[in-house]
Amino acid sequence: MKRSMEQEPRVVIVGAGFGGLLAARALSRAPVQVTVVDRYNHHLFQPLLYQVATSVLSPADITAPIRTVLRSPNTTVLLAEARSIDAARKVVVCDAGELPYDLLVLATGATHSYFGHPEWAEHAPGLKTIDDALEIRRRVLLAFEAAEREQDPARQQEWLTFVVIGGGATGVELAGALADLTHITLRKEFRRIDPTRARILLVEGLPRVLTQYPEPLSARTQRDLAERGVEVHTGAMVTGVDATGVQIGNTRIQAHTVLWGAGVAASPLMRSLGVPLDKAGRVKVEPTLTVPGHEDLFVIGDVASIQQEGRPVPGVAPAAMQMGKHVAKNILRRLRGQSLLPFRYNDRGSFAVIGRGAAVGVTLREKLKLSGWPAYLAWAGIHVFFLIGFRNRVSVMLEWTYYFFTRRREVRLITGGVHHELPPISSSAAVAPRSQQELPAH
Amino acid sequence: MKRSMEQEPRVVIVGAGFGGLLAARALSRAPVQVTVVDRYNHHLFQPLLYQVATSVLSPADITAPIRTVLRSPNTTVLLAEARSIDAARKVVVCDAGELPYDLLVLATGATHSYFGHPEWAEHAPGLKTIDDALEIRRRVLLAFEAAEREQDPARQQEWLTFVVIGGGATGVELAGALADLTHITLRKEFRRIDPTRARILLVEGLPRVLTQYPEPLSARTQRDLAERGVEVHTGAMVTGVDATGVQIGNTRIQAHTVLWGAGVAASPLMRSLGVPLDKAGRVKVEPTLTVPGHEDLFVIGDVASIQQEGRPVPGVAPAAMQMGKHVAKNILRRLRGQSLLPFRYNDRGSFAVIGRGAAVGVTLREKLKLSGWPAYLAWAGIHVFFLIGFRNRVSVMLEWTYYFFTRRREVRLITGGVHHELPPISSSAAVAPRSQQELPAH
Repeated sequence: MKRSMEQEPRVVIVGAGFGGLLAARALSRAPVQVTVVDRYNHHLFQPLLYQVATSVLSPADITAPIRTVLRSPNTTVLLAEARSIDAARKVVVCDAGELPYDLLVLATGATHSYFGHPEWAEHAPGLKTIDDALEIRRRVLLAFEAAEREQDPARQQEWLTFVVIGGGATGVELAGALADLTHITLRKEFRRIDPTRARILLVEGLPRVLTQYPEPLSARTQRDLAERGVEVHTGAMVTGVDATGVQIGNTRIQAHTVLWGAGVAASPLMRSLGVPLDKAGRVKVEPTLTVPGHEDLFVIGDVASIQQEGRPVPGVAPAAMQMGKHVAKNILRRLRGQSLLPFRYNDRGSFAVIGRGAAVGVTLREKLKLSGWPAYLAWAGIHVFFLIGFRNRVSVMLEWTYYFFTRRREVRLITGGVHHELPPISSSAAVAPRSQQELPAH
Repeated sequence: MKRSMEQEPRVVIVGAGFGGLLAARALSRAPVQVTVVDRYNHHLFQPLLYQVATSVLSPADITAPIRTVLRSPNTTVLLAEARSIDAARKVVVCDAGELPYDLLVLATGATHSYFGHPEWAEHAPGLKTIDDALEIRRRVLLAFEAAEREQDPARQQEWLTFVVIGGGATGVELAGALADLTHITLRKEFRRIDPTRARILLVEGLPRVLTQYPEPLSARTQRDLAERGVEVHTGAMVTGVDATGVQIGNTRIQAHTVLWGAGVAASPLMRSLGVPLDKAGRVKVEPTLTVPGHEDLFVIGDVASIQQEGRPVPGVAPAAMQMGKHVAKNILRRLRGQSLLPFRYNDRGSFAVIGRGAAVGVTLREKLKLSGWPAYLAWAGIHVFFLIGFRNRVSVMLEWTYYFFTRRREVRLITGGVHHELPPISSSAAVAPRSQQELPAH
């Protein structure tokens, strides 16, 4: 079993998302020494993250320990944060020390972008990591608890107002799932508030939601969302976000829970490369996925900017997975002295889900458009198929089946401290039943 | 459906653990207005909490939203923290305001006690809440990641040393589960460390573990633990706990991960009652579960101190459940003007589990002693049966079946920030493979 590593080139992969994980897997039997570096110990199936944020799934259902997925003897997994790349010395500078490489793959993914307003971040958390999803879940569930404690109707309504900023797939899916949570799952669980009175607003600056989809599907999505009780505001630019609401032009919306699904930016690690970046901070890579002027440096996934037939390859999971496999192939060609092949994105389609029986999808270069039940079922099947690990597939299928029939969401945990954000209510009226007339004389 | 509440007495239940939950359920059709107050939004099945701490189960598997369990129209659930009881004015003072009651049930359970050393708490977390379990899971999983980053063998061993303080059921179960995690599940997942080299110490001040069990079962437990690689130290008093280890008399054990399963104390809320408490801070209740001198005030579960046949009723889940049902019965008797009945604890037995196929149990007043597979299977069946909710029963059974056959634990998530505790390693040797000879010349 012991293999000599004297001659084996060191391939370092930073990031174990879809791109990094598939690159590492494709190299698991190759004559290279692979080191995978990630800030987290788990791979995350990001397309279902909104279901963790809205209490449908548990974090463990959509994650897998990176060490378990990458158990090949030629692969070392390191929990560490890459801070910068020193391309001249060929080292990755991590919090754990310096990591020398012969070939480097950067697959660190995207983070939130608040359009030059970093101060919005604390009031409007985005959704990229498990910790993000748990924070959103905590805020959403706490808002209902706070409303139940609150006696002032205006302040109660502030707690029951949820604003989702950004009408892309993340925003649409979050808003749809929030609507089902409040209007169906929680309907009968409170005594002093009526959760169906909750307002859910989806705010998009462009004229329609899901702009990457054909126009009829955007219209269908807006209709499906409206039917579920989501107020869709398109052409609405957010100009301010603070602790008690959002400003949209001249309109002020009082809301304690604001969620961010709008801007993404490439991981800031890219800036340390000193190469041209696009507006979103992504590296403009060669068709072979190498960085111009750095033959030993590959960039893939959401941090890579690449055009195909005049259109940018989108920052979606299938593109990252295909790039991961391609970069592994090109690394092996490089080691064999062969020329590198250009990457070609094969767009098999994409889906966005609104709720039970409601989704939209385009496949085969928009030849096939789906909506309603067919889109929903296709979406569910594809997502279970692409989940990592047998346990997760079974677990997600069972959770969905249970939810599908009962509409109950049992993953309604508030963790991470519960109280510091709730308003201290000092009058004894605070704990009286909804109608004062019902109070027994005492 | 609308019911007049003019005449209905207000029953306030503080705490939705086993005692509070069963009391509220038993009152769900009674002509009373029930208000249940809890700091958390979920009921927790504490006997399986150690499996969340050791990556076998997800938090959602052993919790249920209190609102979902207590959906009766006469019941209001309030997320709030009770700060004190004003028995003269008959109000519970909460962070959410004051809550008047006609009859009060206190079921706030136990917290950790560090034997007069509160400064040990940050270095040796205990296991009472989901947040506690996630913190322990985080520390345990991070320790292996830190060891994999560490190059110095002595410091590596410090990261791979786990000390569990307290040889009661919690300590035994934690130590056994840690042993299986390190010696079986993680065995092949690291490249630079050998997880089977991890030391797991169980430290108990008394001469044997599980002192509430007959002596032969303690001996069997110590043998089963030793077979799994746990070093059991009995008669060993811990005299110091700090960030890098524990002091046991003259012996210093260097360890980064120390877990606390030793002392428990009643919730501090009891002190506000101004009635006699026992050494552990519990209220010495009448046989009817009322507080002496307070006919309208009941105390149940881990905060109640009660003797039966010269022995204290133990602070275990079945006792709390029986008290919860009994207190509901006595409340109804009080409302009908009947005399209150004394509580009788029916000891159906108890179990402690060490690992797959290894457990001990006593049933029927120690007439029947079990160990090994029979105890393990009985333990598993009983715990699934008493879980709250169909979903949780199915989910736990499936997780156990999966783990039983694969020995894999997929709930190996590090959440809540990952890095600030890991040692910053600045030399480039930090990221070299295990053996320096294997390093490619560069």
